Amino acid sequence: MPDLRVRVLDARLGVRVAFLSPEEARVRDLRDGERVLLAHRSGVASARLVVSGELAGEGEVVVPRDMAEGAGLAEGDAVSVRTAPMPRSLRHILKKLGGQPLSSEEIREVVSDIASMRLTRVEVAAFALANHVWGTTMEEIEALTKAFLESGERIDFGRSVYEKHSIGGVPGNKVSLIIVPVAAAAGITIPKTSTRAITSPSGTADTMEVLAPVDLTVSEFKDVVSRAGGCIVSTERMRLAPTDDAVNSVTRDLLIDPEGLMIAGIMAKKLAVGCRNLVLDIPTGSEAKVESLEEAESLAAKFVEVGRRFGVRVNVGITYGGQPVGHAVGPALEAREALEALMGGGPGSLVEKSSCLAGMLLEMAGLAARGRGTEAARELISSGRALEKMREIVEAQGGDARLDPSDVPVGQYVAQLRSPASGYVTKVSNAAVKAVAMAAGAPREKGAGVLLHAKVGYRVEEGDVLMEIYAERESKLTEAYEVATTLRPVTVEGMLLRRVPEY
Amino acid sequence: MPDLRVRVLDARLGVRVAFLSPEEARVRDLRDGERVLLAHRSGVASARLVVSGELAGEGEVVVPRDMAEGAGLAEGDAVSVRTAPMPRSLRHILKKLGGQPLSSEEIREVVSDIASMRLTRVEVAAFALANHVWGTTMEEIEALTKAFLESGERIDFGRSVYEKHSIGGVPGNKVSLIIVPVAAAAGITIPKTSTRAITSPSGTADTMEVLAPVDLTVSEFKDVVSRAGGCIVSTERMRLAPTDDAVNSVTRDLLIDPEGLMIAGIMAKKLAVGCRNLVLDIPTGSEAKVESLEEAESLAAKFVEVGRRFGVRVNVGITYGGQPVGHAVGPALEAREALEALMGGGPGSLVEKSSCLAGMLLEMAGLAARGRGTEAARELISSGRALEKMREIVEAQGGDARLDPSDVPVGQYVAQLRSPASGYVTKVSNAAVKAVAMAAGAPREKGAGVLLHAKVGYRVEEGDVLMEIYAERESKLTEAYEVATTLRPVTVEGMLLRRVPEY
Repeated sequence: MPDLRVRVLDARLGVRVAFLSPEEARVRDLRDGERVLLAHRSGVASARLVVSGELAGEGEVVVPRDMAEGAGLAEGDAVSVRTAPMPRSLRHILKKLGGQPLSSEEIREVVSDIASMRLTRVEVAAFALANHVWGTTMEEIEALTKAFLESGERIDFGRSVYEKHSIGGVPGNKVSLIIVPVAAAAGITIPKTSTRAITSPSGTADTMEVLAPVDLTVSEFKDVVSRAGGCIVSTERMRLAPTDDAVNSVTRDLLIDPEGLMIAGIMAKKLAVGCRNLVLDIPTGSEAKVESLEEAESLAAKFVEVGRRFGVRVNVGITYGGQPVGHAVGPALEAREALEALMGGGPGSLVEKSSCLAGMLLEMAGLAARGRGTEAARELISSGRALEKMREIVEAQGGDARLDPSDVPVGQYVAQLRSPASGYVTKVSNAAVKAVAMAAGAPREKGAGVLLHAKVGYRVEEGDVLMEIYAERESKLTEAYEVATTLRPVTVEGMLLRRVPEY
Repeated sequence: MPDLRVRVLDARLGVRVAFLSPEEARVRDLRDGERVLLAHRSGVASARLVVSGELAGEGEVVVPRDMAEGAGLAEGDAVSVRTAPMPRSLRHILKKLGGQPLSSEEIREVVSDIASMRLTRVEVAAFALANHVWGTTMEEIEALTKAFLESGERIDFGRSVYEKHSIGGVPGNKVSLIIVPVAAAAGITIPKTSTRAITSPSGTADTMEVLAPVDLTVSEFKDVVSRAGGCIVSTERMRLAPTDDAVNSVTRDLLIDPEGLMIAGIMAKKLAVGCRNLVLDIPTGSEAKVESLEEAESLAAKFVEVGRRFGVRVNVGITYGGQPVGHAVGPALEAREALEALMGGGPGSLVEKSSCLAGMLLEMAGLAARGRGTEAARELISSGRALEKMREIVEAQGGDARLDPSDVPVGQYVAQLRSPASGYVTKVSNAAVKAVAMAAGAPREKGAGVLLHAKVGYRVEEGDVLMEIYAERESKLTEAYEVATTLRPVTVEGMLLRRVPEY
């Protein structure tokens, strides 16, 4: 029976533990370090028991704040604590680690145990790594999508829902902040959900958060969409496919994003908002997630097939991802650049990519003739209707609708990287730009990032600024500058590349 | 500069965190959740920063007890806390996860970052899993062995040192408790080190701990060996190849034991005590770590080769591991059975295996003629000299030298599993016996385990007791009994296996 009261500790430990006093542990015959289950009215959560007379007193079980939030526990809740058996799903994870694919039932059990917090972070990491290494079959992806979807909330907007998503991997990809208002301005209902960055300096949610709150509740989400027709929000607080979020929080630490889990996570989240039409962006090129056109086509086919199995029409845009999109990388710098683009400025590559993908949505919705979507999208930008719609969206989400790019606060610590020679930019490395921006503090520190002054093909003179690094803290700027001087993200070469024989 | 004082929190969190008050974090420009380095006089340790006004006050950094012990921090120590860059070794781990072998220098960096606690548990898990999935080349094993060895203490006993080790995997393998006193009684110096169980219900250290303390300091260890000629201790407190211990503490949770890491860990620990002659036990058979003779021979060759590279003569005994060794599984039950064997009783399989491996040591040391070792070992048991030596060892380690098997406390909760039919025992499943013993609480709960009343080939009648389960807690007994009735560890069949056609 529930005989203990919850006390929430003011600390986020990043690990699921429950503290009991030595006496409360003794009377329950529980031992320090063992896996226990906390049963409460609305469910059960597993944790590692920590016996501590310093942290827990009589009649209480103490849990850190993040554990309480994840498990839906509140101060004063009545719970019981008992010893937990080893989860059966751990055996499935070991099977997958051995290279054997899992059955739908086994996948369901794994996802269910992640959802009910019966698996530790290390065990979830093992599952993700097994998929990273061995891949994921179409049957597994289907089962994962279904299980992710069933683990969370579903929202019915009562109308036909369109969505846009990028698999990520290319830095500076702030296109959703342009595509969503363009589509919504044309009358498309587009409740865009996204996660925070998994392996990059800024995810769409991180960038949008600079302009407006993104951690909405389900009712706020529905309200925004009914008022503005579109929105750009994070899924985490709404618990749309929350198991995917739980997996991402582990893979994020490992800097991996296993393909099968990515497809299932994206599709589950689109299904959760009732999406039936999806434009998917697969950035392709050197140092992107997908490096060749063949890989991109194979991945595209998988998304289309999963979509088919769940009744979603997926149109894929394979886009150029061989260098960052636009000039800005990092949440605040990207938000600023997206606003500039909506105002008719912004870098050409950003405007072109956004218009093409928005055009695909317009064509799918029958709002532009085949082949005319891009033009229609450009028209929605140049007429100011997209910017007007963005103001509505930002205001509906609770942000400041003025949307002045110069109001966006960026990091106060800035360093410049200059060209060591005169010549042409032959490469801007995605991986190096990401590493520099993340060393500077992105995405957690919104003002941190990189501003590229030169991209592939630019002519530069010796001493010209190639890029600026922004940081909110001096220590982070120093670290990022070191990374930049080691990795040299921008390559400049003269027209004469080699002399044979050498001097 | 070091400007904070360490306060140790009375709790073992199983994760490396450091608590700072919001104000101390603010003045250092540190953020909740980021990776920080704690620099103190004797080194540096990484931790995740947790900002908590409830747990940390002015001028102090608070660390949980296990973090303090691992990092060598004590109450009142002066430390500085600063933001930590992403460890370079994380890139090597990602490379290995992608299936590429690592260079010696990359291995060295990974091990060094594990040793200095710059990698999180999830990151260490990723490294172990990459080795589990992709295997480990001989060059990597050599580099790992060297790096593990260099990460810890080395002990010089000033005489020729012999050692015995089992790769584990078969339950009930308490042979070291017989082999060590036999060898020492013959005059061999055998400072046996072992780790606690990694994937089994009882490791040698767990079993020996029932009879005497095993967590010795280096000077206690040397003292015991100089007095008794042998000992059976755990390496953890002595920090012999401590990085191997750190890896094991993660793999233990995942129930895996990657071959390359296992070889390197074992060899590093043998080298750390100056061992030049090693008898290695590779239990082989259904549901053991090694299932076929071919695999066993391949693994044996790897151990011999690593030994050759480091100047250690390795003699391998490939032993029958298709069912548990002896009847007892679990620390206390195994310790009791080992004492019975030293007193001239005990199960035949246990006595035979112990004598053969001890005989190999006697032959290597020139104390028995080739082919006469087993006989000489049996003689050392039947004469009582091995038991006398075991008393010396136990006493030197600080245990009770009376060594009366009936004094060994076993779990007070006992359940019996009876045969559903009359017939012959055709299988005793290693995996199922392990699962039952571990569900009962072994190895953490010393009195928990399984006592087999029937082994392969035994004739049993319907209703005969096949096995008993012991537990220290009623909840664990219930769980273990459920596991046992599901998995049925002992298979009984009549001589007529099938009728064709069926009834």
